[in-house]
Amino acid sequence: MSLQNPVFIPGPTNIPESLRKACDMPTIDHRSPLFGEILNPARDGVRKILKSADADIFIFPSTGTGGWETALTNTLSPGDTVLAARNGMFSHRWIDMCQRHGLKVEIVETAWGEGLPAERYADILKRDKSHSIKAVLATHNETATGVRSDIAAVRRALDDAGHPAILFVDGVSSIASMDFRFDEWGVDVAVAGSQKGFMLPAGLAIVGFSEKAMAATKTATLPRTFFDVHDMALSYEKSAYPYTPAVGLLNGLNQACGMLLAEGLDSVFARHHRIAEGVRAAIAAWGLKLCAATPDVYSDTVSAIRTPEGFNATDIVTHAAQTYGVAFGVGLGEVAGEVFRIGHLGSLTDVMTLSGIATAEMCMADLGLDIELGSGVAAAQDYYRAHPPVTRKAAA
Amino acid sequence: MSLQNPVFIPGPTNIPESLRKACDMPTIDHRSPLFGEILNPARDGVRKILKSADADIFIFPSTGTGGWETALTNTLSPGDTVLAARNGMFSHRWIDMCQRHGLKVEIVETAWGEGLPAERYADILKRDKSHSIKAVLATHNETATGVRSDIAAVRRALDDAGHPAILFVDGVSSIASMDFRFDEWGVDVAVAGSQKGFMLPAGLAIVGFSEKAMAATKTATLPRTFFDVHDMALSYEKSAYPYTPAVGLLNGLNQACGMLLAEGLDSVFARHHRIAEGVRAAIAAWGLKLCAATPDVYSDTVSAIRTPEGFNATDIVTHAAQTYGVAFGVGLGEVAGEVFRIGHLGSLTDVMTLSGIATAEMCMADLGLDIELGSGVAAAQDYYRAHPPVTRKAAA
Amino acid sequence: MSLQNPVFIPGPTNIPESLRKACDMPTIDHRSPLFGEILNPARDGVRKILKSADADIFIFPSTGTGGWETALTNTLSPGDTVLAARNGMFSHRWIDMCQRHGLKVEIVETAWGEGLPAERYADILKRDKSHSIKAVLATHNETATGVRSDIAAVRRALDDAGHPAILFVDGVSSIASMDFRFDEWGVDVAVAGSQKGFMLPAGLAIVGFSEKAMAATKTATLPRTFFDVHDMALSYEKSAYPYTPAVGLLNGLNQACGMLLAEGLDSVFARHHRIAEGVRAAIAAWGLKLCAATPDVYSDTVSAIRTPEGFNATDIVTHAAQTYGVAFGVGLGEVAGEVFRIGHLGSLTDVMTLSGIATAEMCMADLGLDIELGSGVAAAQDYYRAHPPVTRKAAA
Amino acid sequence: MSLQNPVFIPGPTNIPESLRKACDMPTIDHRSPLFGEILNPARDGVRKILKSADADIFIFPSTGTGGWETALTNTLSPGDTVLAARNGMFSHRWIDMCQRHGLKVEIVETAWGEGLPAERYADILKRDKSHSIKAVLATHNETATGVRSDIAAVRRALDDAGHPAILFVDGVSSIASMDFRFDEWGVDVAVAGSQKGFMLPAGLAIVGFSEKAMAATKTATLPRTFFDVHDMALSYEKSAYPYTPAVGLLNGLNQACGMLLAEGLDSVFARHHRIAEGVRAAIAAWGLKLCAATPDVYSDTVSAIRTPEGFNATDIVTHAAQTYGVAFGVGLGEVAGEVFRIGHLGSLTDVMTLSGIATAEMCMADLGLDIELGSGVAAAQDYYRAHPPVTRKAAA
Repeated sequence: MSLQNPVFIPGPTNIPESLRKACDMPTIDHRSPLFGEILNPARDGVRKILKSADADIFIFPSTGTGGWETALTNTLSPGDTVLAARNGMFSHRWIDMCQRHGLKVEIVETAWGEGLPAERYADILKRDKSHSIKAVLATHNETATGVRSDIAAVRRALDDAGHPAILFVDGVSSIASMDFRFDEWGVDVAVAGSQKGFMLPAGLAIVGFSEKAMAATKTATLPRTFFDVHDMALSYEKSAYPYTPAVGLLNGLNQACGMLLAEGLDSVFARHHRIAEGVRAAIAAWGLKLCAATPDVYSDTVSAIRTPEGFNATDIVTHAAQTYGVAFGVGLGEVAGEVFRIGHLGSLTDVMTLSGIATAEMCMADLGLDIELGSGVAAAQDYYRAHPPVTRKAAA
Repeated sequence: MSLQNPVFIPGPTNIPESLRKACDMPTIDHRSPLFGEILNPARDGVRKILKSADADIFIFPSTGTGGWETALTNTLSPGDTVLAARNGMFSHRWIDMCQRHGLKVEIVETAWGEGLPAERYADILKRDKSHSIKAVLATHNETATGVRSDIAAVRRALDDAGHPAILFVDGVSSIASMDFRFDEWGVDVAVAGSQKGFMLPAGLAIVGFSEKAMAATKTATLPRTFFDVHDMALSYEKSAYPYTPAVGLLNGLNQACGMLLAEGLDSVFARHHRIAEGVRAAIAAWGLKLCAATPDVYSDTVSAIRTPEGFNATDIVTHAAQTYGVAFGVGLGEVAGEVFRIGHLGSLTDVMTLSGIATAEMCMADLGLDIELGSGVAAAQDYYRAHPPVTRKAAA
Repeated sequence: MSLQNPVFIPGPTNIPESLRKACDMPTIDHRSPLFGEILNPARDGVRKILKSADADIFIFPSTGTGGWETALTNTLSPGDTVLAARNGMFSHRWIDMCQRHGLKVEIVETAWGEGLPAERYADILKRDKSHSIKAVLATHNETATGVRSDIAAVRRALDDAGHPAILFVDGVSSIASMDFRFDEWGVDVAVAGSQKGFMLPAGLAIVGFSEKAMAATKTATLPRTFFDVHDMALSYEKSAYPYTPAVGLLNGLNQACGMLLAEGLDSVFARHHRIAEGVRAAIAAWGLKLCAATPDVYSDTVSAIRTPEGFNATDIVTHAAQTYGVAFGVGLGEVAGEVFRIGHLGSLTDVMTLSGIATAEMCMADLGLDIELGSGVAAAQDYYRAHPPVTRKAAA
Repeated sequence: MSLQNPVFIPGPTNIPESLRKACDMPTIDHRSPLFGEILNPARDGVRKILKSADADIFIFPSTGTGGWETALTNTLSPGDTVLAARNGMFSHRWIDMCQRHGLKVEIVETAWGEGLPAERYADILKRDKSHSIKAVLATHNETATGVRSDIAAVRRALDDAGHPAILFVDGVSSIASMDFRFDEWGVDVAVAGSQKGFMLPAGLAIVGFSEKAMAATKTATLPRTFFDVHDMALSYEKSAYPYTPAVGLLNGLNQACGMLLAEGLDSVFARHHRIAEGVRAAIAAWGLKLCAATPDVYSDTVSAIRTPEGFNATDIVTHAAQTYGVAFGVGLGEVAGEVFRIGHLGSLTDVMTLSGIATAEMCMADLGLDIELGSGVAAAQDYYRAHPPVTRKAAA
């Protein structure tokens, strides 16, 4: 494995030089005012990236999984019912977590490759006259299948049913890379992590709570201490933490938000879309198909690529690592062996992306697939040449 | 606040140059074999530092507080009783966590400044014929009071009573700095964090489970997912994680263990004792007293220093930060305002320590205490000159 | 300009992560023994990389140009004659330096693209019965033209003529990347820099002197102080410097030598050859020609690529920088505008190289050259697939 | 030797965190516009720190010694006469360099510990009716003796004599730490290095040329290429270098200038004076004397401290390194064994300085000198408490 080549896993992503340096801090006293100068603007920056005016932002020394647990344990009580679709590995795991925490999950089985079934959500919510469903889980971007769902439609399903359930959105692999609208979509709890669109090492669960979600914390009885948002909120009033914070990562988060907001969120999203379109052009040139069923659900952060029947897609990932020192993602769960994944989020240029596409080509050819060398590269080159970036980022 | 002066808080500690660099890693694929080359020796290293032959070591992207939650939720069930002494802020918080998770806590109130009351534990355990107590909590080193307790005595209390309760030990501010004997003391769950004796940034909960503790996980019904040790154990079999690991910190942990073991644990402990004795010599020269009641409980990682009646000890900490750019620790809880704390653990030389002592002197004099400038420094100099280090560490 | 993409200039090269960290040192006392632990193995490492048993190695805080000046001023006197061929910009500059230092230069004009004219050297040396020629200059690898010359042939020319002139070799862009044999070729002064094969930032002139060259220093009267090798040698006896050394770069050099020697010099050279062959396959696929006249002089560290008549090759370089954030090298001197250069030395993988080739393709197509997108990439992919690396380097 | 303790050598100095990071750059193309964004403001910043409106600033990948050679070789011709005082090791070495370059040096022997003898310069210059003296050498701060001289007086000596000689000033250990007035003092060539007041690693010679010095370059015939200011000036017009620049160090220099100018030069000088006064208070408390003869020549960057007759002062330095891992400076040349030196320049807080003073005390006591432990620390504490810094620097 080489440390020189870019990684093409769907997170953790390639870390920009400036963020490497921001995270690599000497020890400071996390009870000194200097810490507040890091924490407070980092929370403000996250709020802006969520497109929220006043969500409560909590940042735990944890990961996205811890963010999910934060959402559940702070707003729900044992025996509560939640509504969730299973359309990929990450939605599956979230459902599993709910069950392990004693929640009942109304599961809407959905084909892996399809988006969240907002219409079926709508039906179920309308039928739930007693409002026994306390929360709706929505995975904005299924990292396992490269599928982006329509959160606005989920919100409409709730609104059309006049249903008061809380809306949880897993935005781990979408936030800071694809458009996310906390306020407009009526999200109640949004969950992100440091290691995807924020371009940092793993180690932070980043969570936004709406006023409604905060209200729910008062009656929720699932046990929690480490992930308790009230303890966190009380400490934040003093620019502090209830335990030792991950200062360097928070410093990185502050700087990452600054970079993203300076670039402009629209530019960030357009940049991701452009890189993704080049990858998709290559996939088409190879004659392969995405796991994502239809263009409206194509993810701009990760592409899961179906390989021909009888071929073990995981071999591509193993071969790329062993032979070329390049990391791609394997298929997970139901699509294990059927797909391999190219992550194309975070700090990634067109030039870097071409090297990933070229590597995938070599691997597929090495393993006997009928792929013309250079074909995917040429298709992506065509796309990138024809679609110059809106704004060239400053050196970072 | 200066980034140049050493910190004298009881963690996070000053990070050695080599560990700064070990943590500052480019992104690697945490599902590649390279990750196993980091994870596996890191777990082995921790086990050796715990002085255990075969404890199961789990490392979460979290903090010591998350380590406590790991201990409780994996081994206990709602309504279970635990025995705990409250002799400082951190034992207090652990008790609070137990209660919030639905456990009954038999609390042994103990003066802040005293060690764990092993004899009272013994009495209670002997009386608990029905073995309703499922776990005993023991804070090895109370960071709030600078008190180190006798864990072997707690084990004897259990053994003398023939009591099967699990023994939890909070070693967050002792492990890797003071002698800790997982196997010999019959510890069932030990909890540490990356940011103290391991000399790393905060961000890792480091936990050891005995075979008995692992057995208890099978019946424990407290809900857990993020902190589930079984999920972790299953992933470890594949040198992987159930979610995204904090790779850089793990790399740092691996290297930190290597440094500590190369130095030799006895040397590490002797080094901490030497530094601490110099600080204590200074305190005596100032005519001040430790919060720790008797020499047998003096901590080698942190000293809580009582200031004269009527003086707000917290002013020293504020003044040191504002006027000299140096971080000390404030008094917490019952001893807030009565003590200030000098952390003297981790990567700290005699020379650095003298600068902390000199700063404390200036602050106390500035604030009107009757302290002779240079007096504490001279006492510490005397001690350090008379007690050269056993082994001079290699440059790091 | 992006800091994310690899650079494809013929030095400074992409710096491996571990060397970045080795160079980034806190201040140490350069008069302490710790400095000797850096300096001495660094000098030994360089000697091994030069393939010399006992050359005197000198390392100045300077650059390759300073290394040239070191060679001249320590061994020659005003009015001395040197023999030199001009076959590129760097041999031209070295000749210019000689003239500015009052030396007479017998210049053998040679086509840019050809190697050193050993036969013409032989003729001249044979005719120089009086041995008025005191030194022969030989540029091992002309960075401007991508031409590697045959130093063994130059040595034979000297030997066949029985001529005692000192042999200077500029190995700035060859040493540590292509085979170099100080002892076998009878080199008297070899000059290298930190920023090419040694994969470090610029800032070190690295020079090897033979016993014969050291003897010549005793009579040489060109003025010198900063570059005086005797001052340096005297200081080296005490593991010190006559002035303040560039400690971090020396630490990096020590580690770089360790990396290269651990990989094995034959593997290092084979690695460079493999990467270069892929680039050359791409160039052939594009239907373009190298500046280097014949395959026997093809450089494995840099390719200078001729573009069609009437096309300004420099536009490719400008366009690559502005549009794709990628750095190539422009043509210099006689071949300015006629060639552009792809540097392929140092720490560069096949995957990174493919991104450079893909970028060059896009640039040439953007600028109207008749280049088929993907064609060069495919040719290089073919080559790299068919020629797996002898040894896969460990992560660094 | 510890990497944790601050260094107390008179350069290289302790490098601030932010400058460590500024120097640690990935490779960029030094022929791209990005390089100009580093080079040009760095040159402007140096000019401001020299207090010059339009000096030509040249920055070589070299050291202060290379800066001296730049001064001589660009402005003088073989056989030229220069006037110089020898009052310490660095003035001695500069004289030696002149002689080795074929210059005649009129040496004014001066006691080591005294400043430059401006009156004797005046006499000599007045007697030199034929203006055979082409340059006057002036060491602003003799690092060997801790003596700062009066450059304005040297200028007056020249002016009073109506003498046209060029004025060279070695400001290596004064510039950016003590007041320096290029324009006001009529300096013609000023020489500095990166590793002192600029707080960077060694590796840059920083030189300022007046218009008069630039004019002198046209007739100067000493050979030069690497250090040729015309080559450099021509390249600077294109924001480039005549060879490969040390980009990371230049980036650090740019940022260092920014830090110093943001702090304000008067604040920088006052900060150095304050730290130095504390050290001098400690020395007085020890009952020791400075090498510097009178307070008007006390250096604010380094103190050379005389130890009692019969005691080898170098033992303190060796002992400090071996026993406490702290670096002081030895006595050089005429005062070898008679003095040891504490460097107190660059990025150094009062708190760090106290640790150096405490270490010196321990060493002297260990070696049998009659020094009261804590006495020097107390005196410095008194001074620092009574003289708070004008402005507390921001965290860096």
